[in-house]
Amino acid sequence: MSRVDESYLVGLIGSGITGSLTPPMHEREAEALGIRYLYRPIDLDVIGRPGADAGELLRAAADLGFNAFNITYPCKQTVSAGLDEVSDDARRLDSVNTVLVDGDRRLIGHNTDFSGFRWALDAALEGAPLGSVVQLGAGGAGAAVAYALLDAGVQRLSLSEVDPAKAEARAASLRALFPDRQVDSITPDRLSEALAEADGLVNATPIGMHHHPGLPLDAALIEPRHWVADVVYRPVQTELLQTAVQRGCRVLEGTYMAVGQAVDSMRLITGIEPDVERMRAHLVEMVAQGL
Amino acid sequence: MSRVDESYLVGLIGSGITGSLTPPMHEREAEALGIRYLYRPIDLDVIGRPGADAGELLRAAADLGFNAFNITYPCKQTVSAGLDEVSDDARRLDSVNTVLVDGDRRLIGHNTDFSGFRWALDAALEGAPLGSVVQLGAGGAGAAVAYALLDAGVQRLSLSEVDPAKAEARAASLRALFPDRQVDSITPDRLSEALAEADGLVNATPIGMHHHPGLPLDAALIEPRHWVADVVYRPVQTELLQTAVQRGCRVLEGTYMAVGQAVDSMRLITGIEPDVERMRAHLVEMVAQGL
Repeated sequence: MSRVDESYLVGLIGSGITGSLTPPMHEREAEALGIRYLYRPIDLDVIGRPGADAGELLRAAADLGFNAFNITYPCKQTVSAGLDEVSDDARRLDSVNTVLVDGDRRLIGHNTDFSGFRWALDAALEGAPLGSVVQLGAGGAGAAVAYALLDAGVQRLSLSEVDPAKAEARAASLRALFPDRQVDSITPDRLSEALAEADGLVNATPIGMHHHPGLPLDAALIEPRHWVADVVYRPVQTELLQTAVQRGCRVLEGTYMAVGQAVDSMRLITGIEPDVERMRAHLVEMVAQGL
Repeated sequence: MSRVDESYLVGLIGSGITGSLTPPMHEREAEALGIRYLYRPIDLDVIGRPGADAGELLRAAADLGFNAFNITYPCKQTVSAGLDEVSDDARRLDSVNTVLVDGDRRLIGHNTDFSGFRWALDAALEGAPLGSVVQLGAGGAGAAVAYALLDAGVQRLSLSEVDPAKAEARAASLRALFPDRQVDSITPDRLSEALAEADGLVNATPIGMHHHPGLPLDAALIEPRHWVADVVYRPVQTELLQTAVQRGCRVLEGTYMAVGQAVDSMRLITGIEPDVERMRAHLVEMVAQGL
């Protein structure tokens, strides 16, 4: 017997997401909670639809009984135009990764990438100094991470990107949102200088993933006093985190952000509190299995 | 933990079906079987789409991850045009009530109204004589019932309808499908004559439902040697069945057909055998609760 009469139908809309671990993460946790809950990947590549169709797909899916969605690449920015309402954080961040369908089939956008990383910081790096942080990568995931860092109280944030224009554009929009903080864009050759003054380092690039092995910066720049966070979670122990642990640094694994966003999405969708440690254990297990 | 890794997303497409008991019937049984299974009513009246859009809705829903559908009024005939394949029985009967989505997202139509009533005959009226049967009502449900009766071996079938043209059209199409049987259309004034020679009587009209109370024929025409079947299942004990039981007739309750079609649909969708008695008990319980 289900714990609740209600049931939940959730979709993940994005490109190349057929193998995503988010659907099994949600479904297994819902089962443990006794909630009737189905999570379907809706892969734009498989159904041959462009990212620009996301809004139209959301309307159709809401008519067919979907209760909520997660949104991922390449739709996080563009989907807003098709929504009826967007939360303050998602509007400020200009990125939606969760959409709820209300009783009148109105579509409401939220962002739990930001809140997920925000939670992860508290959960894994409680009490860590947040004066000055260097962040590698200013793309989609990077935007949510930077927003969460500033929201958490970081005073000085240095964004490093191989594309300086992209880094500066991101820095400028963050300065507009947090006018009392110092947000700089830097080129990789200035990392040594920035890290010499930094409390923490965050990798928001894909480097370190199974398919992009390696380190996103010179290992020599990591000092024991730095805390080091990674958004990559396949593998769980990236080369960056292994290096940091060897130096004696406090670390934040990418699984925390991945689980944090999933927990926040599930809570928004169901109103029920998921068990974050159970979900993270499941994610770690799936990654270890090479899923 | 689910018994199977797979999960099933099923939709019911039709008009005014928001309160249908089929979704909870499927979902409760799937839960008992340990299958992750969600069944969503897609009410054309609620989403403001005409029945002619059923094919388009099926394509959209298949793209969004639906695995199967039940189809009901007013789409059972028209939906075929939007399908890739139709089973022999559904084609002969010109009625589709179940659609499966295969691995290539092709849509395959089936009819389990027919097979459900066919099963019900065996289950509740085993060994009953099938020489001559009178059927009241030749509409949508009536077509599947008549087809099942002839498929079960009925030699002579008399279809009674207030609209003689409708009855004759149905009789003619059944004669084409079963050329070695006798299928007549009769007007209600000839019921006495037909029942005097009949082994059984089937009500396939809505008369006897909560909202259409009463008897679909003169009670005096029912004799103890008749078996009496009803497709109405709200209430479970219709006035017709109560009268028949008082006469000492063998009876077939409408819940058998309702459960039979649901069982056959679930088996087609999952490949797993549902527990028909458990499902019927649940349906009887819901009807008794006035759901």
